[in-house]
Amino acid sequence: MPLPTYFRLEPDAPPALTATVQRPVRFEEVDALGIVWHGRYASYFEDARVTLGDKHGVGYLDLHRHGVTAPIKQLRVDYVLPLVFGETVSVEAALHWTEAARLNYSYTIRNGRGEVATTGCTVQLFVDANGRLEVCQPEFLAEFMARWKRGELVG
Amino acid sequence: MPLPTYFRLEPDAPPALTATVQRPVRFEEVDALGIVWHGRYASYFEDARVTLGDKHGVGYLDLHRHGVTAPIKQLRVDYVLPLVFGETVSVEAALHWTEAARLNYSYTIRNGRGEVATTGCTVQLFVDANGRLEVCQPEFLAEFMARWKRGELVG
Amino acid sequence: MPLPTYFRLEPDAPPALTATVQRPVRFEEVDALGIVWHGRYASYFEDARVTLGDKHGVGYLDLHRHGVTAPIKQLRVDYVLPLVFGETVSVEAALHWTEAARLNYSYTIRNGRGEVATTGCTVQLFVDANGRLEVCQPEFLAEFMARWKRGELVG
Amino acid sequence: MPLPTYFRLEPDAPPALTATVQRPVRFEEVDALGIVWHGRYASYFEDARVTLGDKHGVGYLDLHRHGVTAPIKQLRVDYVLPLVFGETVSVEAALHWTEAARLNYSYTIRNGRGEVATTGCTVQLFVDANGRLEVCQPEFLAEFMARWKRGELVG
Repeated sequence: MPLPTYFRLEPDAPPALTATVQRPVRFEEVDALGIVWHGRYASYFEDARVTLGDKHGVGYLDLHRHGVTAPIKQLRVDYVLPLVFGETVSVEAALHWTEAARLNYSYTIRNGRGEVATTGCTVQLFVDANGRLEVCQPEFLAEFMARWKRGELVG
Repeated sequence: MPLPTYFRLEPDAPPALTATVQRPVRFEEVDALGIVWHGRYASYFEDARVTLGDKHGVGYLDLHRHGVTAPIKQLRVDYVLPLVFGETVSVEAALHWTEAARLNYSYTIRNGRGEVATTGCTVQLFVDANGRLEVCQPEFLAEFMARWKRGELVG
Repeated sequence: MPLPTYFRLEPDAPPALTATVQRPVRFEEVDALGIVWHGRYASYFEDARVTLGDKHGVGYLDLHRHGVTAPIKQLRVDYVLPLVFGETVSVEAALHWTEAARLNYSYTIRNGRGEVATTGCTVQLFVDANGRLEVCQPEFLAEFMARWKRGELVG
Repeated sequence: MPLPTYFRLEPDAPPALTATVQRPVRFEEVDALGIVWHGRYASYFEDARVTLGDKHGVGYLDLHRHGVTAPIKQLRVDYVLPLVFGETVSVEAALHWTEAARLNYSYTIRNGRGEVATTGCTVQLFVDANGRLEVCQPEFLAEFMARWKRGELVG
């Protein structure tokens, strides 16, 4: 089964940036059916997104320093296989190129046997300190994008 | 702004069934930015879905009695306006008609001023006691659908 | 079995103030053993504490208006009977009199059959806007205490 | 400030068994005051307890294999210093010797600067497959205790 393609890319877009984290399934995350409750996956996605953001200077604290926030505007989760207590899963976040003032992330969770268990995506927009939507990319983001385009970002 | 239409309906589908619950925003749900963290909305949606399911005999415990489970296969959340601590929001779940062996729910959260703050949807499939996907509607669901089609279900 | 007495009262203390909320046990709160996971009870306690605080003007938002916060310094939970999905429980918070600059709350959760399922307590101290511990009661709290002592607070 | 001693030990008790885990503070765990919400510490404690249990064969899945569960009967948390987003904390669990059919754990959380931020404890009893309290230690636990007493368990 091919994985869903959550974002349409511009033809000359540089490759996505990625980060992967390992995470054990916690007892508290598993429901009465013995599988991770569907509402907890946003936390799994966030672990990988935060790691990628910190690695490249576009994390929560970086945004805070630049006076902007990037609220989530859309979340989508596609559940393929359940996750169970006792396994350690890997969560990969991929940041996809866009010229727009937004962050397009897709996610892939693999279970303890390496099978794709979940895919999903989030879309974030930028809001300034007065709560106004930024229609253009904030300056620090534009610089980050330029370095990405020039192939200076690894990962 | 028109609300998203998450499901395409068959032409002769009966109207959606709905249930609405009130829920205060909890202190613990609000993040460092002062708004409900995006990952908590699955809980808001579930409150309304559970209420609708219990009302019409297709809730968690009803399914359990019939030996099936209905795991979530897809979740989508579209964030329009933030929710803040201290307000009480309403969450409406709407179950949409389909001939397939699935439950298609859409959701609308309205904030304390009655504005649409969030929309979203979930899709559930049916799995039997042996973990096999049910390609046809389980019998109790087919009966529920028949009553729905005949207009015997209110709400 | 007598309930634990979490706080020793001064001899002339006025009766405790109380507030009770109803709360359905959510599917997401129940673990693989079919009972509410022990770590979720702080949320149950908080529902009743917030209700009591709002009723008497000593809630989160009231404190914020007066420039203080009241961080939790101690939490204790004694689990007597498990809570299960599908039941609606009652959570009572009782605020106990003290001359000290602290908030002493005890809690009693009763299950769907009215049996005591859980007891517990929290202790909160007061911190000013600069993060310094308040050794005396903040003025608004002293006024609240005076009205309590005079028997002007009901509940 | 000396740390609280949560359990009184028998004079000839062997030293406590310990396990320590590292855990980053997650964005979702931090409340509107910018610190980890007090109700989330049970999760921190559980991470270290699960690690210790798995290491010595007395974890959730081991108990399950032996047909018993060990529900939490008491939880206590003492909050010393707040935890903030962005720091990685260490959580140490220590299992204390007792002849009784119970598990007595204490916990110490150290913040990113190595300071004690939180202490606490949990008490677990044993329940058999029929939900009856075990007044004596289950056989597998007695064997584990014997090895502990003989100094065969490291850590």
